Amino acid sequence: MDAIGRIEKALTAALAIAEAPGRPPRLAEAMRYAVFPRGARVRPRLCLAVAMACGEDVPELTDGAAAAIELLHCASLVHDDLPCFDDAATRRGRPALHLAFGEPLAVLAGDALIVLAFQALARAGAAEPSRLVGLLSIIGDAVGMPFGIAAGQAWECEPRVDLGAYQRAKTGSLFAAACMAGAAAAGLPAAPWRAVGEKLGEAYQVADDLRDAAADEEEAGKTTGRDAVLGRPSAALTLGIPAAVRHLEDLVGEAAAAIPDCPGREALEALILFEARRLVPKSLALTAA
Amino acid sequence: MDAIGRIEKALTAALAIAEAPGRPPRLAEAMRYAVFPRGARVRPRLCLAVAMACGEDVPELTDGAAAAIELLHCASLVHDDLPCFDDAATRRGRPALHLAFGEPLAVLAGDALIVLAFQALARAGAAEPSRLVGLLSIIGDAVGMPFGIAAGQAWECEPRVDLGAYQRAKTGSLFAAACMAGAAAAGLPAAPWRAVGEKLGEAYQVADDLRDAAADEEEAGKTTGRDAVLGRPSAALTLGIPAAVRHLEDLVGEAAAAIPDCPGREALEALILFEARRLVPKSLALTAA
Repeated sequence: MDAIGRIEKALTAALAIAEAPGRPPRLAEAMRYAVFPRGARVRPRLCLAVAMACGEDVPELTDGAAAAIELLHCASLVHDDLPCFDDAATRRGRPALHLAFGEPLAVLAGDALIVLAFQALARAGAAEPSRLVGLLSIIGDAVGMPFGIAAGQAWECEPRVDLGAYQRAKTGSLFAAACMAGAAAAGLPAAPWRAVGEKLGEAYQVADDLRDAAADEEEAGKTTGRDAVLGRPSAALTLGIPAAVRHLEDLVGEAAAAIPDCPGREALEALILFEARRLVPKSLALTAA
Repeated sequence: MDAIGRIEKALTAALAIAEAPGRPPRLAEAMRYAVFPRGARVRPRLCLAVAMACGEDVPELTDGAAAAIELLHCASLVHDDLPCFDDAATRRGRPALHLAFGEPLAVLAGDALIVLAFQALARAGAAEPSRLVGLLSIIGDAVGMPFGIAAGQAWECEPRVDLGAYQRAKTGSLFAAACMAGAAAAGLPAAPWRAVGEKLGEAYQVADDLRDAAADEEEAGKTTGRDAVLGRPSAALTLGIPAAVRHLEDLVGEAAAAIPDCPGREALEALILFEARRLVPKSLALTAA
């Protein structure tokens, strides 16, 4: 099965926990709406790629970690879109969840997706309990305080923002966790993989800024131009678009160079460079070529 | 150290994860506001009491599970109080968190407390990784879908409510998890403890209905009379107050009778009956005597 096939299967299995008979049906529908149809699944694909490069021996564990990471990403999008934060109208080309299901179910869907990530991880952990402690810390720390996604979002509520801390926490943390969890699921040390994920997260953030600044809404699948309207930090607005595209390419190169020694190093490096081309919005592809 | 001492120490250690240097300060303050000063700590005390009755041998694991359960309880209160749900003005005798810190930080504090529960559990799990799989499932399932706290709250968003499912999920699930986690932390089978926790959770729900219907706000530490205003299900309103008090006492008796065979069965039974007296609002104590 290819990577996307494994990821969709693992996410389907996780959603099946939530959709067992006796569930409150609308919350289950809202959770499914947040997870399917799929986005790019960038983070879980990264997790699988690292695990395979590390000589993965317990694929159930990788799949559970990858699903947990994607569920947490989906949860963060649902809560970020809420009226009290971005007040976003669309996401992945459809109405944002709080507009489709109402604000109470949007709060609950985010909560329940966060928890579902850990429920899925617990079930996967049964395949190799000795690796669960490390995976649980890596994934929990990537979403929580003091340096995870929630911390990143919280910098938006501070009178003085540490911009580096904001972006590392809001985007870098889950990319780092995707790489580290891939290694940990395969039984290898996780720490050396942090730098790879952080660089890729930074590259992805620049790509997101570029999409917000330059892509049309159909291509981006969400409301664009929000960074300028909301006065949010943006590499595309600060550096200008051509320099931001070059910065993105530099970051991807640094990520590839940071890959620790492992059985599948070369293949992983090629994959990262290939995937990075997809990060640049199509309308800027000539600049990036 | 007594039970409350252990619990406060474990919660302080968990909060210290969130309060590490480099944190966004206001979110860290909001999380602390949600957890301290302490409420009754009913669920973690139950978890410790069961673990001790089961011949606890890895107290760090019990403490981590108990802290996780209390953090999840605190998180659920923060989100329940949000304007889109109960729109509560006060909690534990102070302004509700969203009034003290604003709605964005209230959403994030709830999210970050949910995650912190699992971060704390991961760290405690290192003491005995073989028991972490079970503990993670027990605690995750108690808060998530289809039968945990988030599911319970979601029944408020359904056009047709299954009242039993609503109350079992919203209150019973975390009481059941407190008992089951106590047993699992001590290395004993968890399943036989579910019934004890569910009965105690039901008793606690009746006590909460009584407080809402009959206690004054100073004693309850929160806005009372909300069940009648919001049309929420309430044993006190349905049965009348004297019958609700008798029902509470019956449930506590059933919980005590359901305690599985274990080394400290008698002491636990005595503790449960003693503690149950504290559940009844003081202003109704004569009725309950």
